[in-house]
Amino acid sequence: MASIKPSVPKGTRDFSPTEMVRRNFIFDTIKSVFRKYGYQQIETPSMENLSTLTGKYGDEGDKLIFKVLNSGDFWSDAESKKQKIENFEFTSKTLTPVISEKALRYDLTVPFARYVVMHQNDITFPFKRFQVQPVWRADRPQRGRYREFYQCDADVVGSDSLLNEAEFILIYDDALSKLGLKDFTIKINNRKILSGIAEIIDKADNIIDLTVAIDKLDKIGLEGVIKELIERGFTETDIEKIKPVILLEGSNEEKLASLRTALSTSVTGLKGCEEIETVFNYIANGKLQTAKLELDITLARGLNYYTGAIFEVKTNEVAMGSIGGGGRYDDLTGMFGLKGLTGVGISFGADRIYDVLEELNLFPEASSQSTQLLICCFDKEGEKFAFPVLQELRKKDINAELYPAGAKLKKQLDYANGKNIPYTIIIGSEEIESGLLTVKNMISGTQEKKSVEEILKFSF
Amino acid sequence: MASIKPSVPKGTRDFSPTEMVRRNFIFDTIKSVFRKYGYQQIETPSMENLSTLTGKYGDEGDKLIFKVLNSGDFWSDAESKKQKIENFEFTSKTLTPVISEKALRYDLTVPFARYVVMHQNDITFPFKRFQVQPVWRADRPQRGRYREFYQCDADVVGSDSLLNEAEFILIYDDALSKLGLKDFTIKINNRKILSGIAEIIDKADNIIDLTVAIDKLDKIGLEGVIKELIERGFTETDIEKIKPVILLEGSNEEKLASLRTALSTSVTGLKGCEEIETVFNYIANGKLQTAKLELDITLARGLNYYTGAIFEVKTNEVAMGSIGGGGRYDDLTGMFGLKGLTGVGISFGADRIYDVLEELNLFPEASSQSTQLLICCFDKEGEKFAFPVLQELRKKDINAELYPAGAKLKKQLDYANGKNIPYTIIIGSEEIESGLLTVKNMISGTQEKKSVEEILKFSF
Repeated sequence: MASIKPSVPKGTRDFSPTEMVRRNFIFDTIKSVFRKYGYQQIETPSMENLSTLTGKYGDEGDKLIFKVLNSGDFWSDAESKKQKIENFEFTSKTLTPVISEKALRYDLTVPFARYVVMHQNDITFPFKRFQVQPVWRADRPQRGRYREFYQCDADVVGSDSLLNEAEFILIYDDALSKLGLKDFTIKINNRKILSGIAEIIDKADNIIDLTVAIDKLDKIGLEGVIKELIERGFTETDIEKIKPVILLEGSNEEKLASLRTALSTSVTGLKGCEEIETVFNYIANGKLQTAKLELDITLARGLNYYTGAIFEVKTNEVAMGSIGGGGRYDDLTGMFGLKGLTGVGISFGADRIYDVLEELNLFPEASSQSTQLLICCFDKEGEKFAFPVLQELRKKDINAELYPAGAKLKKQLDYANGKNIPYTIIIGSEEIESGLLTVKNMISGTQEKKSVEEILKFSF
Repeated sequence: MASIKPSVPKGTRDFSPTEMVRRNFIFDTIKSVFRKYGYQQIETPSMENLSTLTGKYGDEGDKLIFKVLNSGDFWSDAESKKQKIENFEFTSKTLTPVISEKALRYDLTVPFARYVVMHQNDITFPFKRFQVQPVWRADRPQRGRYREFYQCDADVVGSDSLLNEAEFILIYDDALSKLGLKDFTIKINNRKILSGIAEIIDKADNIIDLTVAIDKLDKIGLEGVIKELIERGFTETDIEKIKPVILLEGSNEEKLASLRTALSTSVTGLKGCEEIETVFNYIANGKLQTAKLELDITLARGLNYYTGAIFEVKTNEVAMGSIGGGGRYDDLTGMFGLKGLTGVGISFGADRIYDVLEELNLFPEASSQSTQLLICCFDKEGEKFAFPVLQELRKKDINAELYPAGAKLKKQLDYANGKNIPYTIIIGSEEIESGLLTVKNMISGTQEKKSVEEILKFSF
């Protein structure tokens, strides 16, 4: 067989042992916090029926779904389709549904909706689920954007209580604090406030134009936003009315008070203010460890989708896009025929969190996932002496290895260094005779003689 | 949007919260044992280049690889191919490589080989890696056979020491004992013994025919095997010579002694006996917790592939195929141009282990992954009182939930039962006034009044 120079597909990655330990640290931390708040894990298949996914992500999204070729004789299916239908022309678009019935999941939200509808009779509502699995998108790969990446989602469906919104803020605070972040902001907004702003200028139908412009405040400033609003057909009078709202300043309480005044003629707007206030009251009662909580009415992510709270999380320690986001939606499962089930959910951006922790040097040095001790020996005699000791150490749940006899000591110590193993024991004929083994701390370089009994009690 | 009756693709599965807790129990146990023996986790992408996978699994295997359709205008690629090549006919076979460049991984072994070759300069050899990820096969689905399933593999490459073989036996013993199995057998054989048997009848080239027949001893008995050997062209004299080998009886030591006599004219055969004996000596020195270790010379799985030890694990408590297997191979990475790297590896059959543990009722009842306590309340006052208590409990790493105010108590208790939550606390106006909360054990039904302080010290 000719040898092939191996590579991985564009936009995909291998994860080395070191990367896996770090990724597990992130995922395990987030999962343990999800569980602490009563969220339960599910998993769905990597492949979904193409019909489950198509039409859920817009035309652009549909193009980015990875389709799986039907196995068996797909070409004869295509030919018989052509014979049956007059003027059937082969194009990528007409052929795809004929030769592909399955696709790789594009996110965790649509499969979750499908799951809830399929298993609705077995589920205890409110259903609090989390899911940590890869998704695939045929996006053009670039720095930080991959064709296969993990999503970390938690959602609750079947409860309209704002307690859920408050708990998601606490989950962000708890998980990101545990990961070691010292300064981050959880931004919150509410779709009803955005609707209220559109209502007070009588332009409820133009809410998208409005929010797209306001969303850019950070980047283009007030003048830029005004220019864009005029381009999008808003009048000077509209802008005068909106200005105090988008220039909102002060504490969250002060912002809420100003909003209530500005939105006093909009029932929806006031409802949004009330919802935000309820969430703030829960938090005041529950207390945040690290996070700053900030009402930000320019926040509009996923507006077509969200009907209540909108969340976004940013670190203030590193320049980086959002590391999390989410919101409330009112009809997730409607697309699969189950109407009126309200839900709210959040997501952690694991790849970005990885980059942040790396830049801030926050990954723990030692890890219970790595080998703690390497036993080195020179010959079969040493190996024979070492093996029962090794097994005793493992019985005490110490991750330990024995380097197979026959290699030079330098090679064995290089192995320990290559794997960042903190301790080694070297067993030669002298050690076997005396029963005293030399324990070497590979970081400090210090050595100590210890009996097997002492070693078994040592905390590696 | 028309509502679709949702389903999952044939041969794929959703995993419910209960199933996930159980699957995590299996995977976490196996992973912790792999780590205890110094194995490090890696992950590879779900998609590999089609060229990486094609030709590695035989013609039948190639057909079962799920191919991913190229994104973009794949049909124009197909048409331009047809224009360029005279007499190019569209068939499924000719089209596949034109419209598909990527495929879902079929196992973890070929991606591992690709990984080792790609990253050889960053790897410290011997490289002990484990990998727990799903694989996909377009097999006809049937009971216990899925199109997406997890493999749990550990392999070491770059070490020919038989210590590795011995440690894999200990890993099986350790992991399966931890999972609660009480009676299982690890069978071991060696390819060199099978070669030796073929050599003593001068039919080294017919080793496959020989082992296929011998492998059926359990099912068709000695007479059946003899009949099959004759059909496959072996002579009466051959069979007379082989008979004592396949009818091997007694302890492992007795079997080895008989084998050494029978194979005395085959250098390879004797080398196989010596290797097995070395492994047994390590084990005698290391000691098994639960497993029976059995030399079984009828064991021949993956013969084209294995060059030394061959393993298979069977439970004796439930009728079930093998729950694990593996062996030594001498040229895993040769297909990608890196020659002469020897390796040995094993695999756990997670889906079968799941079925065994379920049948034997071995899954732990309680789980640290589930909610330990549900706080129930009747109104906003109760919610307000409960929320800080809830957060204090969570700070103590207790998985706890508060049912949002407004639901009837029965619904809240049904929720606790539906999620198997072992404890509830009910907070009404009386409890708020007295500060004494009622803790109910949902399994025994007993109730106790406790102060908040006492509750925070209680071990749920």
